[in-house]
Amino acid sequence: MFYTDGKLQYPVRVEKPNPIFARALQQAIGGVEGEIRVMMQYLFQGWGSRSPKKYRDMLINTGTEEIGHIEMLSTAVALNLEGAPLSMQEDVAQDGVAGAVLGGMNLRHILSTGLGATPENCNGVPFNASHVYASGNLAADMLANVTAEATGRALAVRLYGMTDDPGMRDMLSFLIARDTMHQQQWLAVIEELGGMEKVLPIPNSFPQEQEANRFSYAYFGHRIDKQVPAGRWTEGASLDGKGKFEPMISEPLGGEPMLAPPRPDGGAQLEQVSPAAANDPSGSTSSVA
Amino acid sequence: MFYTDGKLQYPVRVEKPNPIFARALQQAIGGVEGEIRVMMQYLFQGWGSRSPKKYRDMLINTGTEEIGHIEMLSTAVALNLEGAPLSMQEDVAQDGVAGAVLGGMNLRHILSTGLGATPENCNGVPFNASHVYASGNLAADMLANVTAEATGRALAVRLYGMTDDPGMRDMLSFLIARDTMHQQQWLAVIEELGGMEKVLPIPNSFPQEQEANRFSYAYFGHRIDKQVPAGRWTEGASLDGKGKFEPMISEPLGGEPMLAPPRPDGGAQLEQVSPAAANDPSGSTSSVA
Amino acid sequence: MFYTDGKLQYPVRVEKPNPIFARALQQAIGGVEGEIRVMMQYLFQGWGSRSPKKYRDMLINTGTEEIGHIEMLSTAVALNLEGAPLSMQEDVAQDGVAGAVLGGMNLRHILSTGLGATPENCNGVPFNASHVYASGNLAADMLANVTAEATGRALAVRLYGMTDDPGMRDMLSFLIARDTMHQQQWLAVIEELGGMEKVLPIPNSFPQEQEANRFSYAYFGHRIDKQVPAGRWTEGASLDGKGKFEPMISEPLGGEPMLAPPRPDGGAQLEQVSPAAANDPSGSTSSVA
Amino acid sequence: MFYTDGKLQYPVRVEKPNPIFARALQQAIGGVEGEIRVMMQYLFQGWGSRSPKKYRDMLINTGTEEIGHIEMLSTAVALNLEGAPLSMQEDVAQDGVAGAVLGGMNLRHILSTGLGATPENCNGVPFNASHVYASGNLAADMLANVTAEATGRALAVRLYGMTDDPGMRDMLSFLIARDTMHQQQWLAVIEELGGMEKVLPIPNSFPQEQEANRFSYAYFGHRIDKQVPAGRWTEGASLDGKGKFEPMISEPLGGEPMLAPPRPDGGAQLEQVSPAAANDPSGSTSSVA
Amino acid sequence: MFYTDGKLQYPVRVEKPNPIFARALQQAIGGVEGEIRVMMQYLFQGWGSRSPKKYRDMLINTGTEEIGHIEMLSTAVALNLEGAPLSMQEDVAQDGVAGAVLGGMNLRHILSTGLGATPENCNGVPFNASHVYASGNLAADMLANVTAEATGRALAVRLYGMTDDPGMRDMLSFLIARDTMHQQQWLAVIEELGGMEKVLPIPNSFPQEQEANRFSYAYFGHRIDKQVPAGRWTEGASLDGKGKFEPMISEPLGGEPMLAPPRPDGGAQLEQVSPAAANDPSGSTSSVA
Amino acid sequence: MFYTDGKLQYPVRVEKPNPIFARALQQAIGGVEGEIRVMMQYLFQGWGSRSPKKYRDMLINTGTEEIGHIEMLSTAVALNLEGAPLSMQEDVAQDGVAGAVLGGMNLRHILSTGLGATPENCNGVPFNASHVYASGNLAADMLANVTAEATGRALAVRLYGMTDDPGMRDMLSFLIARDTMHQQQWLAVIEELGGMEKVLPIPNSFPQEQEANRFSYAYFGHRIDKQVPAGRWTEGASLDGKGKFEPMISEPLGGEPMLAPPRPDGGAQLEQVSPAAANDPSGSTSSVA
Repeated sequence: MFYTDGKLQYPVRVEKPNPIFARALQQAIGGVEGEIRVMMQYLFQGWGSRSPKKYRDMLINTGTEEIGHIEMLSTAVALNLEGAPLSMQEDVAQDGVAGAVLGGMNLRHILSTGLGATPENCNGVPFNASHVYASGNLAADMLANVTAEATGRALAVRLYGMTDDPGMRDMLSFLIARDTMHQQQWLAVIEELGGMEKVLPIPNSFPQEQEANRFSYAYFGHRIDKQVPAGRWTEGASLDGKGKFEPMISEPLGGEPMLAPPRPDGGAQLEQVSPAAANDPSGSTSSVA
Repeated sequence: MFYTDGKLQYPVRVEKPNPIFARALQQAIGGVEGEIRVMMQYLFQGWGSRSPKKYRDMLINTGTEEIGHIEMLSTAVALNLEGAPLSMQEDVAQDGVAGAVLGGMNLRHILSTGLGATPENCNGVPFNASHVYASGNLAADMLANVTAEATGRALAVRLYGMTDDPGMRDMLSFLIARDTMHQQQWLAVIEELGGMEKVLPIPNSFPQEQEANRFSYAYFGHRIDKQVPAGRWTEGASLDGKGKFEPMISEPLGGEPMLAPPRPDGGAQLEQVSPAAANDPSGSTSSVA
Repeated sequence: MFYTDGKLQYPVRVEKPNPIFARALQQAIGGVEGEIRVMMQYLFQGWGSRSPKKYRDMLINTGTEEIGHIEMLSTAVALNLEGAPLSMQEDVAQDGVAGAVLGGMNLRHILSTGLGATPENCNGVPFNASHVYASGNLAADMLANVTAEATGRALAVRLYGMTDDPGMRDMLSFLIARDTMHQQQWLAVIEELGGMEKVLPIPNSFPQEQEANRFSYAYFGHRIDKQVPAGRWTEGASLDGKGKFEPMISEPLGGEPMLAPPRPDGGAQLEQVSPAAANDPSGSTSSVA
Repeated sequence: MFYTDGKLQYPVRVEKPNPIFARALQQAIGGVEGEIRVMMQYLFQGWGSRSPKKYRDMLINTGTEEIGHIEMLSTAVALNLEGAPLSMQEDVAQDGVAGAVLGGMNLRHILSTGLGATPENCNGVPFNASHVYASGNLAADMLANVTAEATGRALAVRLYGMTDDPGMRDMLSFLIARDTMHQQQWLAVIEELGGMEKVLPIPNSFPQEQEANRFSYAYFGHRIDKQVPAGRWTEGASLDGKGKFEPMISEPLGGEPMLAPPRPDGGAQLEQVSPAAANDPSGSTSSVA
Repeated sequence: MFYTDGKLQYPVRVEKPNPIFARALQQAIGGVEGEIRVMMQYLFQGWGSRSPKKYRDMLINTGTEEIGHIEMLSTAVALNLEGAPLSMQEDVAQDGVAGAVLGGMNLRHILSTGLGATPENCNGVPFNASHVYASGNLAADMLANVTAEATGRALAVRLYGMTDDPGMRDMLSFLIARDTMHQQQWLAVIEELGGMEKVLPIPNSFPQEQEANRFSYAYFGHRIDKQVPAGRWTEGASLDGKGKFEPMISEPLGGEPMLAPPRPDGGAQLEQVSPAAANDPSGSTSSVA
Repeated sequence: MFYTDGKLQYPVRVEKPNPIFARALQQAIGGVEGEIRVMMQYLFQGWGSRSPKKYRDMLINTGTEEIGHIEMLSTAVALNLEGAPLSMQEDVAQDGVAGAVLGGMNLRHILSTGLGATPENCNGVPFNASHVYASGNLAADMLANVTAEATGRALAVRLYGMTDDPGMRDMLSFLIARDTMHQQQWLAVIEELGGMEKVLPIPNSFPQEQEANRFSYAYFGHRIDKQVPAGRWTEGASLDGKGKFEPMISEPLGGEPMLAPPRPDGGAQLEQVSPAAANDPSGSTSSVA
């Protein structure tokens, strides 16, 4: 169950409202790197957590923090929209060039919300909950969370660079700090689980003798010149300590697939259905000089 | 530029076609944990790679491998659909219970493709390219890639458990092995970059003195009982070696936000616009015995 | 800012887990009538609320309650998935008919979450935040909220009828009661604002003399037999007390629209661009005996 | 069955074409407050109407009117695109600043349609039919319809304010008037059904003794300071005449949920599966000084 | 402007309601091959038609017919849902196997609409208006329309095969006939425009000397064995009479792309930004024995 | 299986980077007329191809070419983003008007990718794989492919007109040429199958005597003035040589549909459920003078 106090986790000030920056901030609300995504992701991971309980508590707790981040950013969007032009005429009056500001806005900020935030990204694309990863596998979830916070911090850093408003930079400096910590905390869980070596390959509960081991530590080359891009991934011990990296030229181990011809009553063309037409052996390829 | 040979990377056999398993396999094609996603993700990361070049090559090379995985799975879907009932009548004839098989199918496998695969997930939801992460930050991208392969391998393992068809299990044992390696290879890049300690916080190019350092290594508690879920993330050195974890009760550092009242011509109700109505000081809360 | 206590607002018990009912319950989580939608809707309305402040508080407060409803339902989904078949083999063993249960499930409950809830509807379609209405107009928002609770209660009632599990019925009886109240509370705001007569037409801040008044209280008939479906909407005083309902046959007041021909360099076909071809006066219609 | 006469319901004139206003108008075509939505909503409600027949007729009749509104707006979009710059070069020539106009356009108006409307909103997001509400409950549908017309009229009013083109304002004055009427007509149905008191709670066919009556008229407070936002919704008779509003502090009636640990073969990590690790009783919380 | 008469274009009868067939029929309503798509496509093409006028009239006229097809199919869905089980208990009572019918249904037919149609496809995915093609190019639009009717007729044929209900087969025989005609009529426009030879390449208004003519009639081979799949497309005169087909091995005409390194303040990792790290010349590939 | 050589199929040069043109180019990557769509469409058609084999090979071969087109366009996007303003401040410095460039950009090019391409269209809407047509009917697929290339070439031509950068025009001249050929090649398959006359109606495997032949070659008029838009489609032999076109006034062959009233326990309002209320015979229409 949840509670609120109606206050902001951190102060949100805007000295010089900028409606295009309001649009940019939306990426941090409803973008794939944004706060709605992490809020839902941590909560759904927590709610579906089957054990151990300590991670459930930790996930729901941090998911609860993230709701407040959406609140901060929504406030920041609204404040950046104060004084925004509501018409072409005002836009010309303010900027001299019709459309310079209004054309760069999320027009729904005028037309749909009356100068408030939306659960959309910076291009006005609504948040889509398919981005919520809650896999039932603790290690996979932790990686998904670090990823979310890594792309989230890159986003916050870019927003920081996009503005010189002191209030906005102050707010972003807080969110950046929180992203720093959140990257740490999910990796700390992996450390608790024994570190990368222990958790790999994810899921580590599948008996590895049932996988095609010959290919478990081979980096496949798919270049027609048979050169293989080399690096740590082509030599040395594998990171789980169970194998040895090697480069391998990928060769087709299967043949050309051959599906049965379509059923006569299946909605194909007659020419596809007739056995005579199928798999015509005559010259399906030709040489080119 | 790309080339093909029309053959499969690994043999795809189905001994006992199962049209519900065909639907399940779709998750590995068009699901968020599936192959279209990683194919696009690695290719877009490679195509947008700004440096160093070796990672570009490595990304595009593996993205090229993934196209062939979609090919294998599409073939597997088609083979599992051989002999599927096209009508209620056939379904009854085969199973005795009308709808037992047909009702569990992706009906588009009959109606839209004539027994072929679709770029959809196991519920028939089309792949949506918003899932492609190519952040321009190498470390963030590598984490996104490990995540994709971790959830991808969990998916493949669950598909393996869902079937007892020897052909399908053989194919999945190959895909599971490749996921094992792909988890490794993206983490190997992080090792090349100096390991987690060096790459954190992501992006590591942002001057950390500009973030609100007071909060960079604090795990915030949001429980009303002021208890903080404890673990590695509340004590010890931070994973980047730059700080020390600590638990901290989250307190609202900002006040209650106050937006300006709506403009009279902005489409709000009169009662919102009138100054008298706004921010009514009279008892907005009441005590409850 | 938000807080939690890790407990459920109301007990969630499942006596006889049913994985198809787990799929049905998803509609109450991620469907358009579901809890993610109202949670976001009330919070975004509150966060963007420009005045009066009392409604902001009330909205955020109830939005906070809704987070806990998602928590309850996610728990209910997970509990209904206990013991679900993970494979075709288990399904046959349990039900005698392969696919009878597994085919009716959201397969992502097995493949993607390991028996946990997703932010999706009952067909596995992810929640899409375009459903969040926060119009900046208080009366419009209240109506959107009553609508959400009316369709939400209809959904809960139908879920109640779909199961005979005592635990599930108990949980739903609570959610139904809350929907009863939530319908009331949004309408109570409209009463506070003076009732429907006063708030209509929404927005009531637009000078009504600027609309085409001739048509403001006319019910237009579009039937070719010139009959107009009659009812309260075709006679009597209008509900805002400002007009009188009347039936009116809709007649085209505008002519046939005529757009300029395409530019020669605009990507149309030559035949469209050439003046000769455009608007060919020769017999564009013919009589039919 | 449907018929047309190829004429516009109301004249559509544009004196000074404005391609950014063309983009804004799209919200009234394909936005959530737009005409495609109401057209489909009224038609699907009518087509699925089970009784009484008079509402079916009324719904389909008004749905038919709405098709003509999309036609008017599509014409308005096309007319606002006349003379739009097709290239960066033209844009500079017209406005002196490259991108001032073109950058503010829906580029698909140039690239995809050759200066015609799209079924998209003002940000170019395609209409998504999940917005169509046809609940099978007459009262819920009427509320959904009033909501659509209330947000639709707010949108039309904002578009009216955004332009000073006399032709566009004339067209919008008509659409605003129709929205005035359409708000009325759906509420008139509720009056016919006995008014709000009679229709509440929706659906009113569910035996209210089966809901958890203790909570049916209580406004729950979720603020940590135990203050409850007060108003009409916390005192007086409920709007259905069946109860009495009261404020109530929300307390968790359920405990902490506990799910079963994951199955060993379910794709979780080993650490989650092992009973030893699950629900570790050791210090999952710590006090903070 | 549009009109209706409340009657069906063709009789819709269902002798033996089948709720799974109701789900299948949804593909013909909201699927990519369905009637909402063609209705919108023909209307938007007509509304945006810039000339000649006769095609505008013809498009809007047929678009108007399609609205009635959605009406027929929505009626068919509702009739197939008569008597559908609303609960697990009823499902068992009817079929002996819990979930056999209910699990195969679109559960929104119970939960969201009270046994009415939705604007969704057979998997419950809502119609998405991005499928509406109105290109501003008459020939391209005609091809899009034939495609829609070809896939639409394949769908209708498959639905016909899926059922043995005489009423449903009768209705489908009508829709199949209309699809036959609609395929014809769009191709008839192309014949009017001079036939394929004259309209190709689309758009035919672009001066063909500005395209890279060397490659305009070459079928590129991308197989690593340098074999080119041969057929009519590799020999003989091109279909527009302006060239000669030839097979050609695709060779990379461009080199390896090299993007500038990321800006130091652009959110990349330090290692990407530092010139030393960029484009590391040391062994990016390795030979494989 | 697939291979790459890391090189571009054709050179990609940008002389004067333009970040708004970068946004425009996205339509050719992730738009419905773009390269991701054709790549997937040809590959899925090939992978699902049931016969004859020559078309499978041809489809996969050309699908492989298209991957390289995405690569070219992604490179073009990245090159057009070189030097783009990352902040409002830079934007003013470069253009004098804040927002003139930045406001016209896809802001995700800054915020999400660090100046790289995304799998989105020109409005930032992610590619959605529902656009991939692979119908299992060879003729329908070929038409879908010509359509894709026709709209694709119209798009490329419009992009060509939008820019005067010599490098971009050179690249586009190549893509336009390839679209010319690709239109040809799919039509060449239809010629191989016997031409339009032979392949129509699609699917031609359905026994035409089972369709309602009376309506198979009639162009239906839906205008209230009973005029029928005339053309090739209303007279002469049908294009499949099996019938004769004729105009026909569409008359309702079915009556008014009548659905059963809702079940009492189905979530409708009481007034709908009660037999007395249903289908009220009293004056559902009224005359209008």
